[in-house]
Amino acid sequence: LVSGMYVAARRMLHNLPACDVALLLESSPPKSRAVIWQLVDPDEHGEILEELSEEVQKSIIRQMAPEKLAAATEGMDTDDLAYVLRGLPDPVYQEVLKSMDEQDRQRAEMALSYDEDTAGGIMNTDTVTLRPDVTVDVVMRYLRLKGQLPEATDKLYVVNRDDQFIGEVALSRLLTVDTARLVSDIMTPDVQGIPADLDETEVAKLFERHDWVSAPVVDNEGHLLGRITIDDVVDIIREEAQHSMLSMAGLEDDEDTFAPVLKSTRRRTIWLAVNLVTALLAAAVSSLFEDILSQMAVLAILNTIVPSMGGIAGSQTLTLVIRGMALGHITPSNSRWLIGKELAIGALNGLIWACLIAAVVALWQQSWMVGVIIAFAMMANLLAAGLAGVTVPMLLKKFEIDPALAGGVILTTVTDVVGIFAFLGTATLLLG
Amino acid sequence: LVSGMYVAARRMLHNLPACDVALLLESSPPKSRAVIWQLVDPDEHGEILEELSEEVQKSIIRQMAPEKLAAATEGMDTDDLAYVLRGLPDPVYQEVLKSMDEQDRQRAEMALSYDEDTAGGIMNTDTVTLRPDVTVDVVMRYLRLKGQLPEATDKLYVVNRDDQFIGEVALSRLLTVDTARLVSDIMTPDVQGIPADLDETEVAKLFERHDWVSAPVVDNEGHLLGRITIDDVVDIIREEAQHSMLSMAGLEDDEDTFAPVLKSTRRRTIWLAVNLVTALLAAAVSSLFEDILSQMAVLAILNTIVPSMGGIAGSQTLTLVIRGMALGHITPSNSRWLIGKELAIGALNGLIWACLIAAVVALWQQSWMVGVIIAFAMMANLLAAGLAGVTVPMLLKKFEIDPALAGGVILTTVTDVVGIFAFLGTATLLLG
Repeated sequence: LVSGMYVAARRMLHNLPACDVALLLESSPPKSRAVIWQLVDPDEHGEILEELSEEVQKSIIRQMAPEKLAAATEGMDTDDLAYVLRGLPDPVYQEVLKSMDEQDRQRAEMALSYDEDTAGGIMNTDTVTLRPDVTVDVVMRYLRLKGQLPEATDKLYVVNRDDQFIGEVALSRLLTVDTARLVSDIMTPDVQGIPADLDETEVAKLFERHDWVSAPVVDNEGHLLGRITIDDVVDIIREEAQHSMLSMAGLEDDEDTFAPVLKSTRRRTIWLAVNLVTALLAAAVSSLFEDILSQMAVLAILNTIVPSMGGIAGSQTLTLVIRGMALGHITPSNSRWLIGKELAIGALNGLIWACLIAAVVALWQQSWMVGVIIAFAMMANLLAAGLAGVTVPMLLKKFEIDPALAGGVILTTVTDVVGIFAFLGTATLLLG
Repeated sequence: LVSGMYVAARRMLHNLPACDVALLLESSPPKSRAVIWQLVDPDEHGEILEELSEEVQKSIIRQMAPEKLAAATEGMDTDDLAYVLRGLPDPVYQEVLKSMDEQDRQRAEMALSYDEDTAGGIMNTDTVTLRPDVTVDVVMRYLRLKGQLPEATDKLYVVNRDDQFIGEVALSRLLTVDTARLVSDIMTPDVQGIPADLDETEVAKLFERHDWVSAPVVDNEGHLLGRITIDDVVDIIREEAQHSMLSMAGLEDDEDTFAPVLKSTRRRTIWLAVNLVTALLAAAVSSLFEDILSQMAVLAILNTIVPSMGGIAGSQTLTLVIRGMALGHITPSNSRWLIGKELAIGALNGLIWACLIAAVVALWQQSWMVGVIIAFAMMANLLAAGLAGVTVPMLLKKFEIDPALAGGVILTTVTDVVGIFAFLGTATLLLG
C-alpha cells in the first residue's frame, strides 16, 4: 500500500462515528481488523471498544499494550469497563488496574464484584440523586449549576440519609409541577429497585413489560448502587433472541463470523461429533434390517424419506415450543393442551402425507405394498415428531439443559430411529 | 364452573396490570382465551389489546362487536390503533371508523396512509412542539400549564411556522440551561428526522446505533408528523431476531403457539410439501445406484451418514451468514474471504471426520474399501456444505428471496445430493 492511502484511510476513519468504525471492524477479516485498528485515533479507542460485540472486542483487547488499554478505558461506562477487564489475563489485568485513576478503579472494582450477567454487572454508576426534603425550585437550581446530565437520564432518584432508594422523579414531572412543591411530595414512591443480583434476562423482561427507559439498581439493604439504561437492555434482548437460533445450529452466542479458521473449526467440530453419533445410531438401526435391505434395494432408496419428514415436522414444533418458553408462554397447566394440539397436527399432517407418499411410491415403484408400508411409517413418525417436539424441550428444561442447544439433536435422533423402525420394521413383517 | 368462581376470577383479572392479562391470554388455548376475554373489564380492553402479539390480537378482535371495538380503541396509541383497524374486514372497519370520535378518526386515517412496516406506520402523534423564538422560561411555564407530558417523552421538538422540524431540545437540557436563553439557542439543530416511509428494520438500526429513546418522523417536505419511541422499537428488534429462527423452520413470524389445530396444520403443511420434494429428489439420486445398493446392503445402511453430516455443517455456516446479513456485516468485499474461510473449515473438519468415520466403518463392517469410500464422500460433502452455506444465502438475497426461509431447504438439497452422489458414485466406481 502507498503511504498516501494510509493517510487518506486514517482521515476517513477519523471522520466516521464510533458506531460505524465498530461495524467496519466487525465486518472485516482478522488481518484487515488489525490494520484498521492501527489507523484509528487512540483517543477514540474507548468509544469504539464500547460499541464492539464481545467476541471482536476480546480479540482486539488481547493485542493491546496494557498502558494503551488503561488509557482507552478512561471515561468508559462502568459496565463496559468491567467487561473489558474481565476478558484480560491476570498479569495484564493487574497492570491495567494500576494505571487507572482512583475513581475509575473504584468503579471497576464495584462492578467486578457482581456477576457479568446480573443487574450489577450491566449497571452504570452515573445516577443523579435527590433528597426528599428539598423543593423543586432547589432541584432546578442544583441541576442548572450541574450544567449537564448523564446520557439517557429520564429520572432522578430520591435517596434518604443512608443512601437508600426511596422513590424517583421523572424529568417530565419536574418540568410540569409547581416549583414550590417538595420532592417527597411529587416523587413516585413504592418503586421497586432492581436487585443487583437479578439475572439480566429478568431485567430485560422487566424493562419490556414496563416500557422503562432506565431503572435503579439496589443492594439487599435497599442502597442505591446505580442504574440500568434501555440501550444496554436492547443489546440483551437482541442477544437473547439470537441465542436460540445460534444454539439450534450448535453455535455459541458470541460466534464471530470473521474469526480465524482454526478457532471456528474447533468450535464447530464438537457439534459434528454429536451429530456423527446420532447418524451412526440411525445407521445401526438400519443395520438391524440388513436382511430385507439386501433383498429389496427399493427399501434402501426410500429409507431416508420418512426420517426426513419427521425431522422437519418435529423441528417446527420444537422451534415454537422453544420460543414459547423464552417468552414465558408455556406453563405446566397448558402443556397438556399443547401436547394434544401437536399430536392432532401430527395426525392430520400424517394422514395427508401418508396418502400422498403412498400414491407417489406405488406409482413410481409399481408396488402398492411398499406404498402402504411407507404411509404407515409416515403416520407413525409424524405423531412421534409432534410428541417429541413438545416433550423433549420440556424435559430438557426440567433438567436445566438448554433446549435450544440439545433439543434439535435429541429430536432428530427420535424421528430417525422411529422413522427407520416403522418403515423397515413394517417392511420386514409384511414382506420379509 | 360455579358462579362464585367467575366473580373471583373477574376480580383477579381486574387487579392484574394489562401486560399480565396479555401474557395470560397469549399462554392460553383458544377456548380459555375467549372465557378470559369475557371476564375482563371492557374499560381495559384497549390497553390489553395494545400489549398482545399481532396474531393473538387479531383472533380476539375478530370476535368483538364493532361498537365495543370502537370503544376499546379510544385513547390507544396511534400505531396500535392503525394496526387494529388494518386487521378488520371492510364492513366492520367502516363501522368502527364511524363510531370513533373525530380526533381519533383523523389520527387513524393518517397512520393508515402509511405502510404498517414503515416509520409512518409505527409512529405516534403525541409530540410536544416548541417555537424557536421563545425563552426557556416561557417553555417551562407552558409545560407547567400543560401539567403532563406523554409517556417516554425525552425531547421536545422545535418546528417553524410551517410546522417543519428544525431541531430538538432534550428535557435534560431544558433543566440545565439558563432560563433566559432562547430555544433556538439551546436546541440541537441539524437533527435528521426519520422519513415516514423508511422501513421499520432501518428505523430499529438507527435507534440501536444512536441509542435513541425517541425520534421525530417527518414527511418529504420536512413537516413533523409524529415520533417513534424505544418501546415500539424494542418490539421490532425482538421480532427481527426471532424472524430468522422461525423462518428457518418454515414458520411465520406471528405464529401463535396456541392457534387452533386446523390453522396450524394448514400453515405447516406447505413446509412439509417442500421438504417432501427434497426427500424424493434424494431418493431419486439413490435410485440411480440401485445396482450397487442391491449388491451391498452395507451401503444402504451407511448411506444416510454423509448427507446428515453435510447438512449439519452447512446449517452452521448458513446460520452464521444469515445472522451476519441481518447485522449488516456481510458485504461483497468480504464475501470472498468468507467463502475461503468456510471452505478451509470444511476441509479441516472433512479431514478429521473422514479419518474417524473411515476407521469406525472399517472396524464395524470389516471392509477397508468401504471406509475409504465413505471418507472420500465425507470430505467432498463437507467442502460442498461450506461453499453452499455461504453462497446459497448470498444468491437468494440477490434475487430478493428471504435466505432464512429458503436457505435451509436448498442447502439440505445440495448436501443430500452431493453426499449421496459422492458415496454411492465412488462405491459404484470402485466396487461395482
